[in-house]
Formats: sequence, C-alpha cells, structure tokens
Amino acid sequence: MRLRNWLFHNFREVSRLFAFEEIDFPVLESEALFVRKAGEEITQQLYNFEDKGGRRVALRPELTPSLARLVLQKGKALSFPLKWFTIGQCWRYERMTRGRRREHYQWNMDIIGVPGIEAEAELLSALVTFFKNMGITSNDVGIKISNRKVLQAVLSRHNVPDDSFAAVCVIVDKIEKLPQDEIKKELSMLGVTIEAVNGILDALSIRSLDELEDLIGPESGAVADLKQLLNLANAYGYDDWVHFDASIVRGLAYYTGTVFEGFDKEGRLRAICGGGRYDRLLATFGGPETPACGFGFGDAVILELLKEKGIIPSLRLEADYIVIALEDHLRQPASTIAARLRSTGHVVDLVLENKRLKWAFRQAERLNAKRMILVGSSEWEKGTVRVKDLSSGDECDVTLDDLVTQQNYKVS
Amino acid sequence: MRLRNWLFHNFREVSRLFAFEEIDFPVLESEALFVRKAGEEITQQLYNFEDKGGRRVALRPELTPSLARLVLQKGKALSFPLKWFTIGQCWRYERMTRGRRREHYQWNMDIIGVPGIEAEAELLSALVTFFKNMGITSNDVGIKISNRKVLQAVLSRHNVPDDSFAAVCVIVDKIEKLPQDEIKKELSMLGVTIEAVNGILDALSIRSLDELEDLIGPESGAVADLKQLLNLANAYGYDDWVHFDASIVRGLAYYTGTVFEGFDKEGRLRAICGGGRYDRLLATFGGPETPACGFGFGDAVILELLKEKGIIPSLRLEADYIVIALEDHLRQPASTIAARLRSTGHVVDLVLENKRLKWAFRQAERLNAKRMILVGSSEWEKGTVRVKDLSSGDECDVTLDDLVTQQNYKVS
Repeated sequence: MRLRNWLFHNFREVSRLFAFEEIDFPVLESEALFVRKAGEEITQQLYNFEDKGGRRVALRPELTPSLARLVLQKGKALSFPLKWFTIGQCWRYERMTRGRRREHYQWNMDIIGVPGIEAEAELLSALVTFFKNMGITSNDVGIKISNRKVLQAVLSRHNVPDDSFAAVCVIVDKIEKLPQDEIKKELSMLGVTIEAVNGILDALSIRSLDELEDLIGPESGAVADLKQLLNLANAYGYDDWVHFDASIVRGLAYYTGTVFEGFDKEGRLRAICGGGRYDRLLATFGGPETPACGFGFGDAVILELLKEKGIIPSLRLEADYIVIALEDHLRQPASTIAARLRSTGHVVDLVLENKRLKWAFRQAERLNAKRMILVGSSEWEKGTVRVKDLSSGDECDVTLDDLVTQQNYKVS
Repeated sequence: MRLRNWLFHNFREVSRLFAFEEIDFPVLESEALFVRKAGEEITQQLYNFEDKGGRRVALRPELTPSLARLVLQKGKALSFPLKWFTIGQCWRYERMTRGRRREHYQWNMDIIGVPGIEAEAELLSALVTFFKNMGITSNDVGIKISNRKVLQAVLSRHNVPDDSFAAVCVIVDKIEKLPQDEIKKELSMLGVTIEAVNGILDALSIRSLDELEDLIGPESGAVADLKQLLNLANAYGYDDWVHFDASIVRGLAYYTGTVFEGFDKEGRLRAICGGGRYDRLLATFGGPETPACGFGFGDAVILELLKEKGIIPSLRLEADYIVIALEDHLRQPASTIAARLRSTGHVVDLVLENKRLKWAFRQAERLNAKRMILVGSSEWEKGTVRVKDLSSGDECDVTLDDLVTQQNYKVS
C-alpha cells in the first residue's frame, strides 16, 4: 500500500500541475459500454456476467467508455474543454502474466473538446513530467507516436472499406506479438488483399516523416499533425522523449488520429502507457461528435521498471512515539499520554497489552519510531514519564505537560 | 471527488496518528467468504453472481471477512498485534435510499491480536479524534456501547441454545426498525419462548451499568469490560462521547463482545459507524482463535451529517496560473511557459485552443487561478509576456526567466 499510495500520489501530483480535475466512475458498468465488434483483446477478455436482476454487466476493463458516458450524461452542465484525470481499478478475465494481472489500476488523463494537436502535446508533456518526477530519463523510456490516419490513407489506397478500419487496426497492433503469417491470415479474413497487406506492412516500417510524406502525401493531415506535434514537443522541452514510429497503432478500436505508446528502451517490458485521439467515441454512444484524446497508464509495468532501475524510495513506516505502560495499572495514564501527543499531531503507537520492553524496542524499530515513552510506577508517582530518544539512547524524566508542549526538556 | 478525497484524507490522517498501517483487499471475492446463516441483511443483500469460470463470487459487501482471510493467509509472516486500516468500496444489491447506496465506501480500523478492552478503547479514541477533526462535537454525535455477552447471559438464563445466538442478535438489532410484534414473531420462529423474548426486551432497555449488574451478575464479564472501557474513555478524554446502552447489538453475526455504534444526537440519520469485537471470526475460516476488534465507517451518513451542520470546507479548485496565447503562432512559446512554470511546482492551466480573453477570465475564475499569463505578439517580440494578478488587476511585462524565478518583477 505504501508503494501504491506513493505511485498514485505521483499520478495525482502531475495531474494537479496540469490543472486537471479528478473524476471517478462505477467499477461495475453495463456490458454494452465495452462491447465493440473490432475483435479487441479488451472485449475478448471482458470480466462480464449476468447479475441477479438479469442485467448484462461487466467489471470495467478500461476507463474511457465510462468517461464518454459521463460526458454525455452531464451534457450542457459541463464547461468545455474538460481536462479530467482518474485513477481506477480495471479487470480482465485472463490468465496472469508478468506485468499483467486480472486486477490492475490505471491512471487516465483526458482532454475533451480540443480538436487541435495541442491537446496531445499537453498529454505527452504530462507523461514526460511524470517520468522525470520518478527519476526516469529519456535514456530509459521513450514515447513512440504515430497517427491512425497513416493506416487509413494506406487502406484507402488499397480500396479496403472504411468499416474494416477499426478491425484492421486491432490486428495490426499485434504485429510484434504474432508471427507475420498469422497477421496476414487475420487481415485476409477481413477481405484485405495480399497486396494491401504488403502495403500496410511497408507503411508500418517507416520511421521518418519525410518518407511518410512521400508515401501518403499531405491529404490526410497525418504528416502535418505529426510535424506540429514534434514542434510542440520541442517547445515544451520533451523532444528527446518522443519520435515518430509508424508501427504504433494501439489495440483499441476507437482511436481516430494521433496514437502514442510509452516503452522502456531496453525493450524488455510491455508498453508502459498508451493513448491517442478518439474523436468519434462519444458519437458512437449517441452523443455529438466531440474531439477527445487521452492516455491510460497502468500501475504494473511502471512498477516493474522502477524496481529494475532501483529508483523506488524506501517508503518506510514512520512514528513519532511508541508509548508503553510498564505495569497494568498504568494503562490509563499511558492512554492519556497517547491521546495528548496525538492531539498535537504526533504519530503515536500505543502498546495495548502486556509486552516486554524487548518487544517494544523491536516494535519501535519496525515502525521507525523516534522516541519511546515509558510509563513506570516510580516516575508516574512523581508525575513524570521517561522519554527515550531511540537514535541516541538519551533519556530523561519529563512531566506530561512538558512532554506535550516539548518544553523544559531535551533528549537528542 | 474533492469532497471524497477530503473525507478519505481525514480517515487516513487519523489512522496515521494512531500508527495504523493501510491495507487493501480485492473488490471481488469468493461468495463463501460472506455467506453466513444468521439471516443478516448483509448476506441477504449480497451482490453475488457466477463468473465465466463457474465460480460463485461477490462484490464485497464489507471488508472484515477479507481482512480475516488475509490474516490467515499471511499467518506467521505477520507480527501481532496488527493495527490495520483500509478504505474500500463495498456493494449491496438493494434499492437505494437516503444515506444508503448500492455502492459506498467504508473506512475500517481493526486491531488483531489484542484480547483486552484496551483495543476497543483505542478504536473509540480514533473515532472521536476523527469527529473532532471534522468539527463535530459531543453535542452532535455520541457513541453507544454495549457488549454481546449481555444478551448471551439473558439467553442462557432462558435456556436459548448457544447456536441461535448470532441469529437472535441479527433480529434484535432490528428492534428500532421493525414493529415489536414482528421482532417477537421472528424470535419465536427461532424457538425463543415468549418469556425469553420479554426477558430480552427488558434487558435491552437498560441504560445503567448498576442495573445491568443487578440483572446479569458479574459472571459474564460484560459489566467489568464495560466499566473498564468507560474508565479508559475517561483517561483518553472522550468520556463525554460514549455511554452504555444495552439496546445496541449490531447486525453482524460475528461480534462476540463489545459492540458500539456512532449516532447523530438529533436521531435523524442512520448509524454513522459501528463496530465491535469478533474474537471467533478467524476460527470460522479455519484459523486459530484470534482476538480481534474493529469498526466500519461509511462515507454516506457522515457526509449527510456534515452537510446538515454546514461544516464542509469549500474545497475549491486551485491554480497558480492560466496561460493563454493571444495568437495561434504563439502556441509554442505558451507551451514553453507552461512547462517551465510547472517544472518549478506551479499549477498551470494552459489554454489549448483559440479562446477569447473573456472566456479565459471566466475559466480563471472557475479554477480560482491567481495569475494570468498573456502571450502576445508585441511583448513576445521583446522577449516578455504580460503577467496579470487576478485579484488586484495589477499587471506588468516580464521576461520568461524572471517569471520562472519570480524575480525582478512584482504584481500583487
């Protein structure tokens, strides 16, 4: 929990710096919100079931559809653009592997209502800020960016119908995970010709914007968008983190424009985070066409990476005092002391049972307590307790009032 | 979310003062963990279902059984006593009413491994500390305490078998919600005689420990425990918050000793929180008998109460700067400015689209932004931007370096 809280605190701090507002959605949603026809892994691995009232429901596999629903629900009560973030638990029904659990958390940041590439640039800046805050450099992590319009231009050149687009993207996204023959087979099952498949594979191997421009020309706007995004990256100061890579498609059906993916440069882990523009998602739920983009950032892969790099802080327990009554009849004064120290903001572990002093010292060590308060008969008869500084071993007898006000005594 | 985060922050702060460690459990658990035979509302309203693998699972209705499971699972790896807290979402399958939703959050604090009443006293102290931190006084809220051994003594006097005890408690807990005839009927269905029912009802009306002692004698230890608890309450300094009330039984089957319940003194709301000792719960899961006690504190009723009392702080949005490019070609310098201000810890809302200045001022107001940075052509040509203090209206032109270091200029 200390590790998770630390990670989430860092997610929140970055979101706050960018003036994003925190939102939350239900964990259990209507299944229909997540079911799409494009053959996405996320839909295939849905943790869905029928509830006692006969409703088809699902433990959410991702957060974006709930966000879209909320935006539609709130409608005109919202003031656009929205800059929202959320940290939420998501589920998949699947066997567990490294960095991929049945239950995980995702940090999402989304900008709703901004059509320009400035939105993507802002989101990428948030990602880079987070990585930097973690102590990660651009030697460790990069962000590959591309645009789905690239693939769209290639498909349209090969006369692949528009309504296959999402399904093609989902297949193409698996290009590094599946053998090329398998990719070709799946694409041809969608009616994509061998010639088109080869055209797609050629396009995906492109890593330079000039080469891309030669291939698809300026009509789609993809090249212009990517150039502008790289210029903004330069203005923000994170150009060393991002580069164009046409092989990035992302596996979610609803992306329409820019797509991006954070990866470890050693290439040993799954994608750290991913996102893109999804200008038509709200329309698919019956709302108006609404420009939108965002990213999802899981808690699993980043923790793997941070552990490998050895850059997780110690996150140890902390306590100011441990208070122990040396005899049973001194439990009441010990309670009084604990209560008074806590009332002035001190973290106090009160020993609630008969424990030996040796145990109390071990407990103090476990909690990294700074001081021990020993409530003994002979001191208490004089109205004092013994205060022991646990790093120096110094000790002295102090009245309760002096203890609480931290006056008239000194141990160090 | 601001309200929820504020509430949870306060839950966490109190738990931290008492040196409790935060834990978490799965949201989805095996149904068997929550199914008990005593007829509890919590079991009747279980949000349970069969998953795709044919497993009987449930969205957790409460947190304590998961805690018990975790303690057993970790076994000897744990160092007792455990002082654990958690804030978790819980579900019930039920119609929604005021202060009672299908989904809610609960704050739990539990002490595992302490047999003495000192554990209960510590938990009550945490509750009172929380109330005080919220600005609630003992005029607003009280905590009723009793002990299930009271009811046990009465039942054993009337020869009610031990294995009906949990079920009797569950029925008796509904005494203020159901008509007395209904209570009598349900009890008699358990084989409790009319005479015993009357004995129970008489005992539950007791509000004084002396009277209780006269009725059940000292054998059960209930009176001694309650007296000791009130003495400790006095030592901690919260005796004005707690009082003995034999009618408190609580509706969970697993309580074995002390039970308590926080309530609003105007009597208009449901219980704010409740808890007690559950020394046999771990044994029912196949573990060793392990002394344990804890409380659950929902997020719904306390928020109702705080709203009624008008003591929720304003929790407004906050931003240091709003940055706006006055012309399209100034987007890049605006991004640079936002990035540099954020890198020094400032919360910056960057306007990402063509917006009129009027809109930006409204947005600044919504975010309670302190300053606006206007990036205009004529200033930018001179390497400066305009900084406007939004409370005074003061403005001046500043270089980017001076802006970031906050030197050589002054608006206030």
